[in-house]
Amino acid sequence: MTSDETMSNEDRMIARFFAPLATHSGALGLSDDAAVVAPPPGCDLVLTADGLVGGMHFFTDDAADTIARKALRVNLSDLAAKGAAPLGFLLTLALPPEVDEAWLGEFARGLAEDAAHYQCPLLGGDSVRTPGPVTISVTMTGCVPSGDMVRRAGATPGDVVFVSGSIGDAALGLALRKGAAWKLDESGRRHLADRYLLPQPRNKLADAVRTHASAAMDVSDGLAGDLAKLCRVSQVAAEIEVARVPLSEAARAVITVDSAVLEMALTGGDDYEILCTVAPDNCESFRAAARAAAIPVSEIGRIVAGEGTRFIGSDGAALVFRRAAFSHF
Amino acid sequence: MTSDETMSNEDRMIARFFAPLATHSGALGLSDDAAVVAPPPGCDLVLTADGLVGGMHFFTDDAADTIARKALRVNLSDLAAKGAAPLGFLLTLALPPEVDEAWLGEFARGLAEDAAHYQCPLLGGDSVRTPGPVTISVTMTGCVPSGDMVRRAGATPGDVVFVSGSIGDAALGLALRKGAAWKLDESGRRHLADRYLLPQPRNKLADAVRTHASAAMDVSDGLAGDLAKLCRVSQVAAEIEVARVPLSEAARAVITVDSAVLEMALTGGDDYEILCTVAPDNCESFRAAARAAAIPVSEIGRIVAGEGTRFIGSDGAALVFRRAAFSHF
Repeated sequence: MTSDETMSNEDRMIARFFAPLATHSGALGLSDDAAVVAPPPGCDLVLTADGLVGGMHFFTDDAADTIARKALRVNLSDLAAKGAAPLGFLLTLALPPEVDEAWLGEFARGLAEDAAHYQCPLLGGDSVRTPGPVTISVTMTGCVPSGDMVRRAGATPGDVVFVSGSIGDAALGLALRKGAAWKLDESGRRHLADRYLLPQPRNKLADAVRTHASAAMDVSDGLAGDLAKLCRVSQVAAEIEVARVPLSEAARAVITVDSAVLEMALTGGDDYEILCTVAPDNCESFRAAARAAAIPVSEIGRIVAGEGTRFIGSDGAALVFRRAAFSHF
Repeated sequence: MTSDETMSNEDRMIARFFAPLATHSGALGLSDDAAVVAPPPGCDLVLTADGLVGGMHFFTDDAADTIARKALRVNLSDLAAKGAAPLGFLLTLALPPEVDEAWLGEFARGLAEDAAHYQCPLLGGDSVRTPGPVTISVTMTGCVPSGDMVRRAGATPGDVVFVSGSIGDAALGLALRKGAAWKLDESGRRHLADRYLLPQPRNKLADAVRTHASAAMDVSDGLAGDLAKLCRVSQVAAEIEVARVPLSEAARAVITVDSAVLEMALTGGDDYEILCTVAPDNCESFRAAARAAAIPVSEIGRIVAGEGTRFIGSDGAALVFRRAAFSHF
């Protein structure tokens, strides 16, 4: 057999669409069983994985490049919250038969552009057939100076609770996409839709988080539920002033008309903002570092002794949520 | 909200079934966004990922513990072929609604037993819902002394081609399961069926491969196709004596009666044996190291200049395969 005859369709697909993304020398052009990476000296490795399933985490008719970007960005967001810099990623891609070359080309383009932008090259992976929907699993590795990974555990009574960007946009964007009939101008509508479609991970905030935060996580399953998780592993409680939770103009416009939407904003998923706690003495330098990184951060409450979380409304009473956190299970 | 009320069903599932497997301190009990691992000094990291889809890579009515073991072992096999020792793995698990706690318990048990046996702890991962079949993505990381990863590229004319264990059993086992009507005693039938169901990765051979092989890969898509891949990236050719390819007693019994099955054995997938090339001067010490590791290895041919692969039958003529390698695409 000549070498061309022995190339399988999978080999051809990898060579055409994915090998160009494997810019790290240790990816060996995706021509080996494994990638090899020399760990940066003085660093710990930070490892995270996220799976996305068509019809569950994205709409199967979303643009293929957007699906690829989302798969990368949800993992980049985890690294950002841990104070880690990306090293690279592995991709396992399960494809149904109806996926064609045009789709793959767009998927690979989105992946390549984001990998370049976030300096996170493709290291390896696997591609398989599925009778189910497109299923994407990304495992990302990053690095932090040894011992410096910011954990969820670490919040202490007295710490200030910060959150980046704005909360609730993605959940509202998803609701709009599912047909929510809110009055909203076209730019507000587009803002919310885009926030659902394409996370904006806060990797520029990673250094500030690593240097100043006592605990951190990314907000992917809703602010209320994720804060509860952080408090649980830190063995502390939190009191949040709802009026200080940062909302976009579009989210505020919807909530003003229908206050029930506030719960959706506080408990819905897909924010991909950073939630962190900072000791009072570090707050000023944290704010300065965030400003220097051009990422807005808002102080929304305090860590206190005890357990559980309280979201306190402007009337001084605690909100009661029907559902704490988003979960597909 | 109290902390119990804020635990999602996913959190509960992870805490019950998977947190007990996260024995590495850097897995943080699966309670964080990411795992943190201090890379062993003087080592390169070896990273590999493999996806398994129900109905494609396993039968959905296979025992759940077996499915878990297979998902780990196909990755362990990649590390073995690279001469790497396992460090740990991340698991992305997409589950359809019909999966129940009994299934999850068995899956977790198989995973735990293999993780302990191969000293490869669970570091992290993700669990998601799917409307499709059970879909498993494992990303495994291992380590080798810096610069020592054995690549597919590296075979040189004159090198001897070795393969571990026996070839073709799994492909024949799959054919039996699909109804092939071969005359075979019960023990032969069970041998072939087991070889398909449960790979036996050759991690005990990893040191011998790292110390002696010029190139190596694991045989997962069929000996003929995988050897062609190794030759392609090494820019060499290979001549294999078919009579020297190691066959189990059961495979030999089937092939003796139906010579067409030989092609199935040489080109079918799922062997998870190690294919490697060794310079003539190193063959004796490679054989001794393999013997010490109690892994059988067989010399099956030679690397020569040129391109392509030739499988030469006992009549001196080269076999012509209809299909070089197994591919789902």
